[in-house]
Parts: sequence; C-alpha cells; structure tokens
Amino acid sequence: MKQKYARLLIVGHIYFIQTSKINMNFSETICAIATAPGGAIGMIRVSGPDAIRITDSIYKGVGGKSLSAAKPYTLSFGQIIGEKEEVVDEVLVSVFHAPHSYTGENSVEISCHGSAYILQTVMQLLLQHGCRTAEPGEFTQRAFLNGKMDLSQAEAVADLIASSSAATHRLAMSQMRGGFSRELSQLRDQLLHLTSLMELELDFSDHEELEFADRSELRTLAEKIEQVIRHLAQSFRLGNAIKNGFPVAIVGETNAGKSTLLNALLHEDRAIVSDIHGTTRDVIEDTVNLGGITFRFIDTAGIRETTDTIESLGIERSFQKMEQAQIVLWLVDSQCAAEQIRTLSPQILPLCADKKLVVVLNKADLLAGASPAHLPELPEGVDVISISAREKLGLEQLQNLLIATAQLPEVGEGDVVVTNLRHYEALTQALESIERVLQGMDQGLSGDFISQDLRECLFHLAEIVGGEITTDEVLGNIFKNFCIGK
Amino acid sequence: MKQKYARLLIVGHIYFIQTSKINMNFSETICAIATAPGGAIGMIRVSGPDAIRITDSIYKGVGGKSLSAAKPYTLSFGQIIGEKEEVVDEVLVSVFHAPHSYTGENSVEISCHGSAYILQTVMQLLLQHGCRTAEPGEFTQRAFLNGKMDLSQAEAVADLIASSSAATHRLAMSQMRGGFSRELSQLRDQLLHLTSLMELELDFSDHEELEFADRSELRTLAEKIEQVIRHLAQSFRLGNAIKNGFPVAIVGETNAGKSTLLNALLHEDRAIVSDIHGTTRDVIEDTVNLGGITFRFIDTAGIRETTDTIESLGIERSFQKMEQAQIVLWLVDSQCAAEQIRTLSPQILPLCADKKLVVVLNKADLLAGASPAHLPELPEGVDVISISAREKLGLEQLQNLLIATAQLPEVGEGDVVVTNLRHYEALTQALESIERVLQGMDQGLSGDFISQDLRECLFHLAEIVGGEITTDEVLGNIFKNFCIGK
Repeated sequence: MKQKYARLLIVGHIYFIQTSKINMNFSETICAIATAPGGAIGMIRVSGPDAIRITDSIYKGVGGKSLSAAKPYTLSFGQIIGEKEEVVDEVLVSVFHAPHSYTGENSVEISCHGSAYILQTVMQLLLQHGCRTAEPGEFTQRAFLNGKMDLSQAEAVADLIASSSAATHRLAMSQMRGGFSRELSQLRDQLLHLTSLMELELDFSDHEELEFADRSELRTLAEKIEQVIRHLAQSFRLGNAIKNGFPVAIVGETNAGKSTLLNALLHEDRAIVSDIHGTTRDVIEDTVNLGGITFRFIDTAGIRETTDTIESLGIERSFQKMEQAQIVLWLVDSQCAAEQIRTLSPQILPLCADKKLVVVLNKADLLAGASPAHLPELPEGVDVISISAREKLGLEQLQNLLIATAQLPEVGEGDVVVTNLRHYEALTQALESIERVLQGMDQGLSGDFISQDLRECLFHLAEIVGGEITTDEVLGNIFKNFCIGK
Repeated sequence: MKQKYARLLIVGHIYFIQTSKINMNFSETICAIATAPGGAIGMIRVSGPDAIRITDSIYKGVGGKSLSAAKPYTLSFGQIIGEKEEVVDEVLVSVFHAPHSYTGENSVEISCHGSAYILQTVMQLLLQHGCRTAEPGEFTQRAFLNGKMDLSQAEAVADLIASSSAATHRLAMSQMRGGFSRELSQLRDQLLHLTSLMELELDFSDHEELEFADRSELRTLAEKIEQVIRHLAQSFRLGNAIKNGFPVAIVGETNAGKSTLLNALLHEDRAIVSDIHGTTRDVIEDTVNLGGITFRFIDTAGIRETTDTIESLGIERSFQKMEQAQIVLWLVDSQCAAEQIRTLSPQILPLCADKKLVVVLNKADLLAGASPAHLPELPEGVDVISISAREKLGLEQLQNLLIATAQLPEVGEGDVVVTNLRHYEALTQALESIERVLQGMDQGLSGDFISQDLRECLFHLAEIVGGEITTDEVLGNIFKNFCIGK
C-alpha cells in the first residue's frame, strides 16, 4: 500500500499528478486499416516519427511532389507504388505533423479504393518499409500517452464508436470532450486545497503562533467534496441504464408465466430485440426498446412453490439478481394471487425498498370474468396490474407503466453522467476515502491520519483520468477492447 | 436501326462522338456513407454544386473558420452540430472544388468516428439541409458524365473495389487508368480515317479527276483494324479466366468418381474455397485456388453408362457446359478404362478440339497393382494421368498438370485484357461489322455500303467508352451494381 502511493506522497505539497509517458516504444511507427472491410473507400492510418517518410517511400505524387514537401492538414493525390513498380492504387493522402494530430505524432491517412486486396497490399508495403501493425486502440493510447487526452476521454472514444442511440452518443461525446475531466479537475483542486490545509496543520502543528483554518471550515469543504463524489457515483445508475439498458427483473414462482411474458414483450418488438454480447460480461440478457428506452430484462430462476423454506441456491441467485434491477416485475398467478403474494412477501418486499415494484397478476384470462381474490395489503408505491401474457392482454398497459417508471432524466450536454464501470469503482473507492476523512474529523483525528485518506481519495480520482499512476496492466485492459485502427 | 445511328450519321465527317451530359439532374447535391459499417473511422461523401455550402451549414470549424474559406485539397478540423446545437462529432473535412475532384463537382469528405449512430445522424442533417441520398455508383456516374473518365474506366472502378487477387487488381487498375481506352481511341482514329476515305470516295465518286486511295490500301487498313479488334475480343477468354476463374469441366460416366474428385480438390484447399455469388449470374460454381490461379470447376451431369444412345437432356447439357471450359478432365474408371474411352470418344473428342483434354484414370487403387488395360489411341496433346480420388493418390500430379496448363500469360501493366462481358459483346459486334467491311471490299461493293458497316463498327466500339449514344438504361445497368458511396 505504501509503495502504491509513493509518488503521490512525494509530490503531495506541490502538484498532484502529471501525465507523462509510460514505458512504451514511441520510436516505432504503427499502421492499421481504420475502416471496416467492404466499403467503397478504405483508409489506412500511419502514426509515428517516420509516418511521413515511410509513406513517402511507397508513394508517387502527381507532379512528383513528395509528402515531406506537403503542408500539414493538406491532401495529396498520387499513387501507391508496389514492389514491382506497379501502381497499387490511386490515393488521397492526408498529412499531419506532430504534435498537431490525433496521436500527437507525425501521422498520415491514406484513402484507397475499398478493396481488401488493395488495403492488404498497401499494409504489406508499409510493413516492409519499417512500420509495424498497430495494436487495438494503439492510436488512442498514443494520444493519451502524448497528453492529447486523458484516460476517461480515451475510453469515451471507444464508447463513441460503439454508441447506437442518441443517449449513449451524447454521454460518450460529453465525456470525450472533457466534461467529466473538468468535473474531476475541479474536485482535485478542492481536494488539493483541503490536503494542503491539512498538511500545513501537520507541518506546523508545534508552531502555536500560526493560525489555521478551523476544523469546522475544513469539514464543510470535505462535505462538499463528498457530495460531488457521491453524486457522480450515483449517476452511474443512470449512465449504466442508458448504456446497457434499464434493468428490469422478472421474478415469481415457476409457473407464474415469466417466460411467456418475456417472449410476449420481446415479440412485440422483435425487430429491435437484441442480445447484449458484452466483451467483459458473462451474462447474456435480452434487451427490448420500448418508447425509445432500452430495457434489459434480467433472467431470474423461478421461485419454488413452497410454504416454508425458499432457500435453494437458485432462488438465492434470483434474489441477488433482483439487486441489479431498478424495476421488479413480480409475476403472480391470478388464480391464487393472494396466497402467492402472502408466501413470497417476506422475501421480496425487503429487497424492493429502493426499487419500483410492480405486482403483475398474470393469467387474467383464466379467471373467466371473476374478480381476483382480495389481495394482502402491499406497501405504498407498489403498482398492481392485471394481464394475460398468453393472450397478450394488458401488455400495452404494462409497457406504458415500464416506460413511465423508467423516464430517464434528460441529460444535457453539460451534465456529467458516469457510464464506465471502472470509473464507478474508482468513484466508490474515492467516496469511501472521503467518508473516512469526515469520520476522522468527527473523531478529532490528527491531520496526518486524515491527510492519508485525502491522498487516497485523490489517488482514486486520478485513476479515472490516468497518468503516472496508471499501470501498464490497466492500460492494457482499457485498450484491448478498442477496435483496430483507433 | 436508322434512328439508332442518326446522330452518328450527322457527325460522320466531322467528329465521332462527344461525351456530353445525359438527362440527369446535376443541380442536386448528393451524399452517401462511403465506408462499410463497423470500423474505427467512417466517411461520408458529399458532391454537387452545394456540397461545400450545405456541409458548412452543419459544421463549426475550430476558430470559427468556415469550409467556404478553406482552400481546396485541405483538411479542416471541426464539429458537426446537430439540430439542438449539440455536438454530433468531431470531424476532419476535406474540401475539393470543381472540376478538381473525383466527380468533377464541388465535393466534401467528412471523416467521422465510425459509429453507425453518428454516421446516420450526419446523413440526416445533410438531407435536412438539401442533399439527397446518392444512388449506388452515382459519384462515379457523375465523374463519367462530367468527362472525368469514360465508361470503361468507370466500370473498372467497381472491378477495382471487388478485386481480390493480384491479377484481377492489375487488370482493373490498368483499365481504370485508361489503358483500354487508349487502345480504343487509336482504333477509333484509324476507323475514322478509313471512314473518311470511303466517304470521300462516295461524295466525289462522279468527279473522276479526283484521285483516291486505291481499294487495296483501304483493305490493308481494314485488315489491321480487324486484327486489333479480334485480338481484344479474344483477350476476354484470358480476362474472364482471371476475373472469374479458369474454367475446368469434369466429365465422365456417373460412377467415375467425379464428385469424389471435386471434393478431394476442394478439401485440399478448403480455406480458400469460395462460392462465386454473382449478382448477374445464375450458376453457383466452386472455385479453388491452386498455385495462385483460381480454377472454376464446372459441374456437369454424369454421362449414363450406355453403349448406344447417350442423348438425354442432362447429358446434352453436360456437353454444352464443356463448351465453356478451357480444360476438360475426363474421368474414367481404371477398371474399365479402355471400354469407357471407346464409348464416349465420339462425343467428347470433337468438343475438345480447342481445349486441353486430360483423361483421368480414377480408382487406380482398385487395380491392386495390375496395370490398366491397353487404352485406345488418343489425339496428340491429350494427357493421361492415373489417380485415386478416394485414396488421394496422384492428386498433386493432377493439380500440377492443371496449374501448368492454365499458366496464364503474365499480364503487364500496359497490356489490355478485356474482362467485362459488356465490352466483349460490343467487341464481338464490332468484329462482325469490320468483317462485313472486308467482305464488302472483296465483293467490290460501293463505298456507301461499306461506310455503313464502318459506322456500325465505330458505334460498337463507342459503346464501350460511352458518350452521347449511351442510353440511360445502359447506364442504369452498369451503375446499379456499384456499391453505395462510390
């Protein structure tokens, strides 16, 4: 633990963290095909100190003009010349000079005809002349390491490319453009101010003639910081709902019609049903877009129809999964509704305290006009709705209830919403640290103890934007999920 | 027929054909996504009189610089701004001024992050501001109609994008760069010269004092032209083999092991086996790449084992398909080789006069060491090879024979090889016309008759490069197979 914070301690008084280069070979020039195969146009990106020189060696400009002679931010029309002096393609080449490029390095973009053969041939020529193939995300990684963007902005690039709706796009764009980074930067400044006040107190605690900010002022400052961090951490619930779908758990006894309901909901919008195949996720869940909102239905094992113990492993898991949900649809057989509700209430109700619970009385068609038995009293705010999943009765009402409940707040361009699990985890740890700071203050702990927690808080916030403290492993994990050419 | 040549007759003495604009609305500005979905980078092309103005209206340059102020062939960095003033993406925009662009019009290329959402949003903004979606190939069609390239070059663009091997790439590149067009242009000049001599003779035939080139000189000129056209038309056999695969028919009696051989050949190179799914073709045939050459195996129905009549419809078709092949593998059962060869020789041998015939003695393993019976005499040049398709014996030898036979002549960059069926058909008709010219001269026909055939020949050659005579239907057929964005 000591080692982990070593660098932070040294620079504690002066400055927080400086972005600087990590162990990485910047002398290599990298290249990759940046467009998907099969289009009319294909583009190859080259970046690194020799990007222009290497491309020049396989390029013949109209009128003999070389790329080295081209001004930055201009397009040159010419030919890529193959090993046997044959014309591989007629191309448009964009030239960028360090540091005024995406990566911050000398860069070249070659627009070719979108033939796989041509793109492969140009790539081979570049490799023969001294480039190496870029790793996934390596262009963005270089941009980060060259200080063109911080880590949260780099991550937003991948989110931006993967964005498939207005909402996910807006969040990724805001993050890429540094909205989140600015928020963190302000937090950092406040934390640094607080830390320096605490450390001043620490250093000069034996000089009684010096006057310090009193503890109550410090506490107010710490509280403000705690609120901002808490607010950011809580925004992940919204961010995650936007990015991965609003989580809805369907629970109930095994014969309540859970899968029939799910199929009916999916069937209504079959065209826009999709599986979320996450690269970092183990579970594959069904999502449905209803009224412009993506719902993610969380599969839970049916709860056994039993009157006393309901503690099998599968049922345990169902309840765990309910934890992830923001809406719980509790499916009940209309024919024995009162009994089922009474049986499972002790297990389900406590877990739904901070969720929207909807009791769905299924199989309404089987009641044949009879009204359902008098239901046990349910807590305030619990909705009861009557449907028949099999006969597709009441489904629209249920969908409208889902849409009304999930009304996500409109996210403006300036709003910061956390969408990344890594950021959420760092914020949660930062929150724990700042809470320890507050506790320490309440307990009248000395400045050196409190300052240690403040530094931990700073460290966790710093993890989000990255810098010296970012390990190669963290970088590797972040960029491995990028696509090639970005 | 008269109407068809009307324009040609009018301009007959003066000039041949001028490329000019066909009924098409050039006042419209078109846009399309030019890259395939799924890459790191996506590009949108805009072309037309308002390309720069329209893009400017959704673009905000860094430092407020507009695209109208940007010099041609430069890149501008800025943002695409959405309907609600939100940033849709940070983009690089290339600007081209008419006529110095691909289409010959004002053009813009917008490089975005490769998100489907972003690309669709930018497209919608462009459409809202006055663009319309481009038809497949419309950018290239405009380039043709603006005289930036002729029709054969435009067709080569599609071939270039579809090129998947060094050979197909080389042919398409040569054609796109105008190799074929130059050859046709020379032919046209010679034909025009000949036509004017003939028409001079025609116009002034009653002025006996005027001296004309004598008929034998004219005949020598016509013969030269005929040779060039014939040579071009014949090159289609090679061009087609390169583009669609070297055609090999496997024929033989039903139990000769035809499908076992085909499977064995395919199995050897399963990784590079592919189906040709042509858009204009009905037949799906198996192709295998052996030694860098693509072979297209033509399926033929097995020939019934019968001693007298072999004239069923299926067998008829087998023989028709043999016509397409350049190599015929005649599969024979080693155990009754002499008999099978004797039976089918009268049908097969006449059809293989201009093809490479290989008699493949299959099931060599079943001979158990015994040498095959003495075979009937076969024409010179027919190879006999012994294999076992089932046991995979002798397959390598067979493959080497195929490769050696198919040795396609090395096509240099300057060589003109016809690969396009439309061109081949036009050349064939031009060839017929020039042959009628030669016949007419032999028969001492008058200049006006001969001149009519010369003009037909000119007409068919003109069809290849296109121009005023090109109908919208022909253009539609050509460009409908292009991809969007090209």
